[in-house]
Amino acid sequence: MNNIVQITGGVTAPQGFLASGLACGLKKSGKPDLALVYSDPVATGAAVFTTNKVKAAPVLVSREHLSQQNKRAVIINSANANACVGPRGMADTLTIARALADLLQTTPDELFLASTGVIGVPLPVPPILAALPTLKENLSAGGGTDAARAIMTTDTFPKEYAVAYQHDGREIRIGGMAKGSGMIQPNMATMLAVLTTDAPVPQAVLQQTIRAVVDRTFNRITVDGDTSTNDSVFLLANGAAGGPPVTGGPALAAFTAALEEVCRHLAWMIVQDGEGATKFITVRVTGARTEQEAETAARAVANSPLVKTAFYGEDANWGRILAAVGYSGIDFAPEKTRIRLGELLVYDGAGLAFDEAAAKRILQEKAITTEINLNQGEAAATIWTCDLSQEYVRINGSYRS
Amino acid sequence: MNNIVQITGGVTAPQGFLASGLACGLKKSGKPDLALVYSDPVATGAAVFTTNKVKAAPVLVSREHLSQQNKRAVIINSANANACVGPRGMADTLTIARALADLLQTTPDELFLASTGVIGVPLPVPPILAALPTLKENLSAGGGTDAARAIMTTDTFPKEYAVAYQHDGREIRIGGMAKGSGMIQPNMATMLAVLTTDAPVPQAVLQQTIRAVVDRTFNRITVDGDTSTNDSVFLLANGAAGGPPVTGGPALAAFTAALEEVCRHLAWMIVQDGEGATKFITVRVTGARTEQEAETAARAVANSPLVKTAFYGEDANWGRILAAVGYSGIDFAPEKTRIRLGELLVYDGAGLAFDEAAAKRILQEKAITTEINLNQGEAAATIWTCDLSQEYVRINGSYRS
Repeated sequence: MNNIVQITGGVTAPQGFLASGLACGLKKSGKPDLALVYSDPVATGAAVFTTNKVKAAPVLVSREHLSQQNKRAVIINSANANACVGPRGMADTLTIARALADLLQTTPDELFLASTGVIGVPLPVPPILAALPTLKENLSAGGGTDAARAIMTTDTFPKEYAVAYQHDGREIRIGGMAKGSGMIQPNMATMLAVLTTDAPVPQAVLQQTIRAVVDRTFNRITVDGDTSTNDSVFLLANGAAGGPPVTGGPALAAFTAALEEVCRHLAWMIVQDGEGATKFITVRVTGARTEQEAETAARAVANSPLVKTAFYGEDANWGRILAAVGYSGIDFAPEKTRIRLGELLVYDGAGLAFDEAAAKRILQEKAITTEINLNQGEAAATIWTCDLSQEYVRINGSYRS
Repeated sequence: MNNIVQITGGVTAPQGFLASGLACGLKKSGKPDLALVYSDPVATGAAVFTTNKVKAAPVLVSREHLSQQNKRAVIINSANANACVGPRGMADTLTIARALADLLQTTPDELFLASTGVIGVPLPVPPILAALPTLKENLSAGGGTDAARAIMTTDTFPKEYAVAYQHDGREIRIGGMAKGSGMIQPNMATMLAVLTTDAPVPQAVLQQTIRAVVDRTFNRITVDGDTSTNDSVFLLANGAAGGPPVTGGPALAAFTAALEEVCRHLAWMIVQDGEGATKFITVRVTGARTEQEAETAARAVANSPLVKTAFYGEDANWGRILAAVGYSGIDFAPEKTRIRLGELLVYDGAGLAFDEAAAKRILQEKAITTEINLNQGEAAATIWTCDLSQEYVRINGSYRS
């Protein structure tokens, strides 16, 4: 898959996709809070949603819309999650869906909808309805970044990525945008992503592929272990690149690899932008008997407040890492285990008298990898996370706006 | 059990118990770091240990000593955990056990041993051996507080509690000391407690009782969700109060209730002294189908960094509480659920327009209770925790001394 190249344009990088973003008044700050991604020709649509038992209204509506294979557009508002507001939540989302469907001369079930922001406060519907015509007028092939900005909440920068690759003499493009920040954890907590491609992919194949790719990318990151009520990843494929349907073989392998690259980069951006994050931490568990076991151990380490604060403090505290593996629930032998910070071996069945200065140099880096080798098998898994800083507490200990 | 009264004296409150604590040089600060609790007459001994797969040497040794019913003493050092140092860890603990056994004219297996502090650094044995004679000479019936001080690590105050109750015309006393602070979570992470009683309780009954009581007290508190390698709770019963063996019926019921009161108060002190804690949070889940389900949900809420930072910020953020129940894994109906902050109902199947001023008054309290009523059964469970402050991050983001 070495023919995958990064390109600009985000969700509007692929042919046939338009996007727009504007401020309709949901954010007190006056910043953009409403985004639309539109496809012409009509696309097939797939999606993966939060596993949280508490699901926001737009998640429930979009999930129902999966029964319709075709998708025209994705609309997302920030500043309000339209979650936990009772029956009116569904009514409000359906009202917006109907109005947008009329405007785009399509049906509500050809739309995906998402909301992100404050929970438990009724969604202000009138300002959204009033903004729809302008949102449509503003649609443009260069509007990817506007849309990416409009879905931000506590994010400090818009998150976009796009790639192109050649297959059978055709160029296929895949673009994406995401928002993350607080409450990011496995199963896509308060994480939204919209992915677009001009590859011709049948809906069933698209759904299988996005689920598998999300499990290896967005579901392998964590900021604070919390998971939210609104997470959604949408993927639209409009076939504008032409060629035969992508249903398997090399064509699907190439598409999956490119999609995974886009999702991995968006996931990394979310971790890098984790609330108060000062370091990007890669926790890799190797030598496990199964990938599940490796992932369980890596997740425990990545979610440990003591490990995360140690990285924040640039403290070579492998004891906290080993202790986290110890309570992860997996069976392993501490006396056979090896722990590395970067390339530096700090624990080998017992603590080592390692070079403190070398450790300090590694821990002062912005990106740090720790490898825990359980030495009891061939399986491995990686979880990406960030450190836990005083800034995280400051952000989450005060009201959001 | 209304005849249970609080008394002073900690571990030396019951008849026949002596204790001492001194500084042998493990703590750079020169503060006390070695504690001894001794019983004459000889006691029966029970203990519960960490569930972490990574167990410190003294935990492994003390666990083996459970096969010996009689116990003479408990020795605890702070500043060094004697964990993850390889085979020498066991050798060092056994060396200390042999030396103390000779000094007390008993056998090593009549001793419980514990260590708490830095992981992965070899335990300095000579200073401990050198201090043993003085530690023995200093044993006194008023030494409970000295011992409680000597087991502190990042604790900001010594933790002692004792009660007395009448049974069949006899006074029975139960005393205890504990240390906690960072890394406290279910299954007693980096938590040590020594409990003493002059009740005559056979070892088998003592073991059953302490396990049940620990599950309802020390295992229901959490500070940061991490669990450690050294946690141990010891209980010695020397029968000095006289009377028939406590094996069941009202005698055991009274003993269990009194022991639970001591353990609950020690557990509360540990939470109140959680690293950087500014508030004591009681998370109570009611209306659950099973106690296990209630505990799972309460634990998820109590361990959520977002919930804990919201309490720190005095933010009535019931959305984070509901979201935590949502990802706890239990099955429940958000639309049937009720959430209270103190007495204030803030969520009733949907967010309520509650009195912000009233909420603020409740959240400004040092002790806050939140009740989540799932409305689908009769079971309930309570988890005690503290808020997550910037001070927690500061403490854990820098090297300990």
